[in-house]
Amino acid sequence: MGRVYIVGAGPGDPELITVKGLKLLEAADVVLHDRLVPAELLRRVKPGAVVVDVGKRPGGEGPSQEEINEMLLHYAQRYGVVVRLHGGDPLVFGRGFEECEFLISRGVACEFVPGVTSGLGAPAKYFIPPVARGTASSVALVTGREDPRKAARQVDFKKLAGAVDTIVIYMGASAAGEIARELMEGGLSGDTPVAVVKSAYFSDEEFLATRLADLSSVPNPSIIVVGRVVERGVRLWEAARRLSL
Amino acid sequence: MGRVYIVGAGPGDPELITVKGLKLLEAADVVLHDRLVPAELLRRVKPGAVVVDVGKRPGGEGPSQEEINEMLLHYAQRYGVVVRLHGGDPLVFGRGFEECEFLISRGVACEFVPGVTSGLGAPAKYFIPPVARGTASSVALVTGREDPRKAARQVDFKKLAGAVDTIVIYMGASAAGEIARELMEGGLSGDTPVAVVKSAYFSDEEFLATRLADLSSVPNPSIIVVGRVVERGVRLWEAARRLSL
Repeated sequence: MGRVYIVGAGPGDPELITVKGLKLLEAADVVLHDRLVPAELLRRVKPGAVVVDVGKRPGGEGPSQEEINEMLLHYAQRYGVVVRLHGGDPLVFGRGFEECEFLISRGVACEFVPGVTSGLGAPAKYFIPPVARGTASSVALVTGREDPRKAARQVDFKKLAGAVDTIVIYMGASAAGEIARELMEGGLSGDTPVAVVKSAYFSDEEFLATRLADLSSVPNPSIIVVGRVVERGVRLWEAARRLSL
Repeated sequence: MGRVYIVGAGPGDPELITVKGLKLLEAADVVLHDRLVPAELLRRVKPGAVVVDVGKRPGGEGPSQEEINEMLLHYAQRYGVVVRLHGGDPLVFGRGFEECEFLISRGVACEFVPGVTSGLGAPAKYFIPPVARGTASSVALVTGREDPRKAARQVDFKKLAGAVDTIVIYMGASAAGEIARELMEGGLSGDTPVAVVKSAYFSDEEFLATRLADLSSVPNPSIIVVGRVVERGVRLWEAARRLSL
């Protein structure tokens, strides 16, 4: 019986995986990976290793979570080292936890190897900190996706508006305008700075700095950061770029 | 003129630094590091490199932030590659952002290399996820430390109680009892599961699972996690341990 390592690939730069994550990837007999992991990482697997893309396509096509679970079980019963490679961190809006719950319920050992979560690592590329002394002491990481079993979103953005200094939204692209409206109803000013980071570190990367009142259409997949830290970060990033010219 | 890399060492396991962070550490002419970074990482610097511990001692002794800034400037003016190594992630309750602001204001280039933040990476060792489908859709990362310039804490825990599903508290050891009381005043049940992870991955590591009403004295330094995910995580961790026996 093999062992499943549920590994975070980090925010997109192939060098932002952890040393442990890379070692496991190189030792793996089988790798099941998300769609958005760096191609360069997948070239590090050993010859003969089984590599399966289990990621969702933009239209939602791809294996279901139940099918991924069964594949993990199948490979763990036949191979020694199985790596389940998630973009970012497997426990932050990945399904890594549920995968491990399933495997352990079937008697298969698994463990987590954390990665830099995209909601922190993608903004860091643009010098945007989640918190910064004098500007923000708290940050919430939240999903912008609606609960598939309910009509409502899972996060109460009105309450959130007054409770934390910075809000980082994962999977919020399609609902961005609505989320912005709820945050303003919750008391955030329309002037609140917002950063949108699409596909950080990939070739189709985009960065947009805007204001909450102007947040509407956002490319998918993006990380959205709302809060005064955005302004301070963008200012520093621009100064850093001037210095490099 | 050199360049300063503000690098996260990750949550404590020397293999949980990023590949990029380790490469920079190995290439560094100078390393200025926090007290709580893995000793094994510091043994990876090249012969002749300058290594300076700029961390605070438990009593608060050690160089001030102003002194650290001046040291970074001093070394950047004399060497090529200067690494400022923070425990966890340099932008999550580190002072990495202010260090970079200072350096760029003095004309020294700097950039961030993210790390796995301790507030996510330490609980992951015990299978505790910040969010998990069906249990939690939002997590706040907050500091438990009081603002040194004000009497009050910087985070309104009463408001936070109703706004997010999981709360991860950094530097909350000395105020843990008071924070627990404020969270209960804000509406959290005294039954809410709490995990305390002290010095994850170090030899003096401790783990404690408790309830909010019983949270009082906590060893320092610790990460405190409050929320229903704790119970689900601990249950999985215990099942995983039984499987390995």
